[in-house]
Amino acid sequence: MRWARYISDGKTFYGIYENEEINEVRGSPFEGYTLSNIKHKISDVKLLAPVIPPTFYAAGINYERHIREAAEILGRDPILPEKADIGYRAANAIIAHDEPILIPKDATEKIQYEAELVVVIGKEVKNVSRENSLECILGYTIGNDVSERTWQAQDRTMWRAKNTDTFKPMGPWIETNVDLDQMETSVALNNKELIKFKTSSMIFGVEEYIHQITKYLTLHPGDVIWMGTDGASPNMSHGDICEITITGIGTLRNSIIKLS
Amino acid sequence: MRWARYISDGKTFYGIYENEEINEVRGSPFEGYTLSNIKHKISDVKLLAPVIPPTFYAAGINYERHIREAAEILGRDPILPEKADIGYRAANAIIAHDEPILIPKDATEKIQYEAELVVVIGKEVKNVSRENSLECILGYTIGNDVSERTWQAQDRTMWRAKNTDTFKPMGPWIETNVDLDQMETSVALNNKELIKFKTSSMIFGVEEYIHQITKYLTLHPGDVIWMGTDGASPNMSHGDICEITITGIGTLRNSIIKLS
Repeated sequence: MRWARYISDGKTFYGIYENEEINEVRGSPFEGYTLSNIKHKISDVKLLAPVIPPTFYAAGINYERHIREAAEILGRDPILPEKADIGYRAANAIIAHDEPILIPKDATEKIQYEAELVVVIGKEVKNVSRENSLECILGYTIGNDVSERTWQAQDRTMWRAKNTDTFKPMGPWIETNVDLDQMETSVALNNKELIKFKTSSMIFGVEEYIHQITKYLTLHPGDVIWMGTDGASPNMSHGDICEITITGIGTLRNSIIKLS
Repeated sequence: MRWARYISDGKTFYGIYENEEINEVRGSPFEGYTLSNIKHKISDVKLLAPVIPPTFYAAGINYERHIREAAEILGRDPILPEKADIGYRAANAIIAHDEPILIPKDATEKIQYEAELVVVIGKEVKNVSRENSLECILGYTIGNDVSERTWQAQDRTMWRAKNTDTFKPMGPWIETNVDLDQMETSVALNNKELIKFKTSSMIFGVEEYIHQITKYLTLHPGDVIWMGTDGASPNMSHGDICEITITGIGTLRNSIIKLS
């Protein structure tokens, strides 16, 4: 099942998306819902990011090739994480599928994508075993952890490198039925595929992260966990179109606009 | 004016607190409100944290003595921040005035308070000048940035060191009228005052942070900015009572319970 969040007639709704149509609901997948008899063509509504999370978690570095290639670029030894320490991103930066990524005029040319599987939490949980960890998940969507690498290297935190407004595209919808082991993540820049990796080849998987996080933190409905990316990325420039596809979910597409 | 958020008859309200009474409102200070004719004694309601922020900002290190004393304890040279790079905390960890700070059973004895002025944003703003930066502020409250120092040193991020459930007491209410230059922050552990500092002796003040943040990020109503703390802190143990007082706001009081 696919959950879309969208604007219709100036109001925000959730709906179930199937065969190019969205069946509007009253309520939401988090608090409960009833189907309405209103249906929209998906082309007739404006999609929103499928959720604004109460807390926005991000694994950060969680694929080995990403760490090795980033270390090589920086001329450092690669340091693999020893445990599933989670990080954070910020809700101000979230945009939807097909909204533009706006690059501030004082940013450098080092603006790069990071293609990530996003876990969307559906239930409040704490102290979850690895075995039961997937039960609290509503579904999965796609995130682009857009990064300004010069700021990332210079600043004391990743606040503007990762959380400048529009730097966190997320969508297009939440897919509730996926096969985590069979998924592939691929990225195309201007229709040219640049990388493809097994979504499941994470250092620490979804189960491990949820198990470790919930030893100390309560996860809430709508919280998201961005699971990290693989490989290194080229710079993106004004006018580029970045498309991230994950098997079974769909494609998250955003254009790049450099502000002047 | 003081804004309290509280539970009455199982429902959550905002109200204006004056002379031991809360005047209930319909709406909120963020979206607009009308006064009701319902008044409660403050002792008859359960206070909540005065806001759950869409984004939870934290200055982290922003007082010189805190940096020098922390560096001395760690046997390192103190490194003062060169600019107002902002960090983040997480909403899951927020508790209210008079709720207990729960220490996980596997935490070490190094559980410490950090007494902080909290800025509560009232309006959506971007690209704010230093001169106009205070206009977007609804008011101020008090935060205790409880920290587990062993985890802070060991983990790749500060996720559990700073954001374990209950580690972010905030309250008791939002005070809209303060004199930033005249405030003092003091901390008492079990009724013994351990530190007192000029709230305004920050390395980067509220104006500078809001100016710098909003060059890149939109601040939203309800966002909070925790402004950092001064000095070093002793460890807190099971049964301790930690009280943080800031002139003109009030006192945030929380007990410490070590889970077994």
